[in-house]
Amino acid sequence: MSATSTVQLMDGTSLAKRIEDAAARAAEISPRTGTSPCLATVLVGEDPASATYVRMKQARCAKTGSRSRHIGLPATTTTAELIDTLAGLSSDPGVHGILLQHPCGPHIDERAAFEAIAPEKDVDGVTMHSFVAMSFVLPGFVSCTPGGIMRLLEAYDVDLAGKHAVVVGRSAILGNPAGMLLLVMNATVTYSPSRTAGLSAIVREADVVVAAVGRRRLIRGEGVKPGAVVVDAGHDPGNVGDVDFDTASTRTRLITPVPGGVGPMTIAILPAQTVDAAANLLGIQRH
Amino acid sequence: MSATSTVQLMDGTSLAKRIEDAAARAAEISPRTGTSPCLATVLVGEDPASATYVRMKQARCAKTGSRSRHIGLPATTTTAELIDTLAGLSSDPGVHGILLQHPCGPHIDERAAFEAIAPEKDVDGVTMHSFVAMSFVLPGFVSCTPGGIMRLLEAYDVDLAGKHAVVVGRSAILGNPAGMLLLVMNATVTYSPSRTAGLSAIVREADVVVAAVGRRRLIRGEGVKPGAVVVDAGHDPGNVGDVDFDTASTRTRLITPVPGGVGPMTIAILPAQTVDAAANLLGIQRH
Repeated sequence: MSATSTVQLMDGTSLAKRIEDAAARAAEISPRTGTSPCLATVLVGEDPASATYVRMKQARCAKTGSRSRHIGLPATTTTAELIDTLAGLSSDPGVHGILLQHPCGPHIDERAAFEAIAPEKDVDGVTMHSFVAMSFVLPGFVSCTPGGIMRLLEAYDVDLAGKHAVVVGRSAILGNPAGMLLLVMNATVTYSPSRTAGLSAIVREADVVVAAVGRRRLIRGEGVKPGAVVVDAGHDPGNVGDVDFDTASTRTRLITPVPGGVGPMTIAILPAQTVDAAANLLGIQRH
Repeated sequence: MSATSTVQLMDGTSLAKRIEDAAARAAEISPRTGTSPCLATVLVGEDPASATYVRMKQARCAKTGSRSRHIGLPATTTTAELIDTLAGLSSDPGVHGILLQHPCGPHIDERAAFEAIAPEKDVDGVTMHSFVAMSFVLPGFVSCTPGGIMRLLEAYDVDLAGKHAVVVGRSAILGNPAGMLLLVMNATVTYSPSRTAGLSAIVREADVVVAAVGRRRLIRGEGVKPGAVVVDAGHDPGNVGDVDFDTASTRTRLITPVPGGVGPMTIAILPAQTVDAAANLLGIQRH
């Protein structure tokens, strides 16, 4: 990242901190009930990157006043066994939120596993119930990354109504719900292909680009409309996003850095929704 | 409608007949079980147009070997009473499909009512479960109009992969799921605004237009890309669609007439899904 002084960044790190501070204040109300919010984290196997993600999420929850309970399952766990574990946590009154770290491995039917999470504890926003809630503005939790993106756009006063937003990538927990959330805000939304031929013509028209496909530097500066708002939700282990920051940031009005943009927002939504879930389940009136 | 001989129409009337014939053949398998498929139709109030629609749907079911059971409720019916009725039909083993004719009137919470329909009997494709099934290619029923549109496009060999499909209108049972079904076919999908300013620039780029907003002649010929495929799912009592047929059909490769395009397809999907629902519920192996 080599931002010049004229680039206006959407600073996910500082906004995430504000969201976590608010969650921490909200979590303080729960001692009245004699309990604190509890997130159950479930990890299948021992992938070091996944284990690191889980520890980071647990640490954020601890920082915001939530406990976490970790369930580590062997790599040989079957889908049925994983579903049993998740169903048990769904009905456990001591657990308010459930995170299934994914990908779980090719032998697991992830969709079936996600659906074993009770909607009212789906603080990672991975169930179909949460998808419907996002699409139709019903009560429910958002997927963390799309939810984090929307909070960023809101914080930087990006007016979406009537704007053309292009979403690159259509995964069930990122691109697809991100498009639905933008549509709810009355944007004109295009789900773009990720193959370059079709992509470039579409992205060049976009007022707002959400890149969520996971291909390093897929979108370059010359492909971005001058004055566009660019959100880079791509991620790879080397912290290279879907957007070529150096060339794109010379043309954008607002852009997320990688790291420090969408990543911390994704992480902040989880403890915030855990506190919300606990408040809902414990019957605490939020203000 | 004044089609010239060079206009290639997507003939919903004849395709609908083929679908209904196939449903009728499938319905014949059920006498083995000593029963025939049964659609429950529910109508709140006495709006004459709604009553006509219900009778037409019942007639189509009869033609394809399904019985129907009609429940007429007074206009004063509350949401809670309507939910009770629908929940009763959902658990009634003699009913295989449920149609709630809508709009139900401003005093009814239609979403709550729809959700009282068991997903396995949602042959009109109005529940959130059906929306998710459409979005993520899971088992379930399609909303009748989007489902009918996809069958038309398929019958006329419209290759959607990599094409730019624009959906005008974003209702929960028409525009929104139509876009999801197009996305599943690997089209690039744009949900367009219906306000004319934004609309025209977007529609002009579309290889496939699905107009589903219900504004008479909103889309005119000069706004359509030459060679486009245009599906007009608009409807009004005077059989005027969202597309100005006379000007648009001079430029399109394929276009649906109004009437005789999407309308009959919408109607055909209902008995077809009723037969499917009965087969599923009665445990009949389909071939």
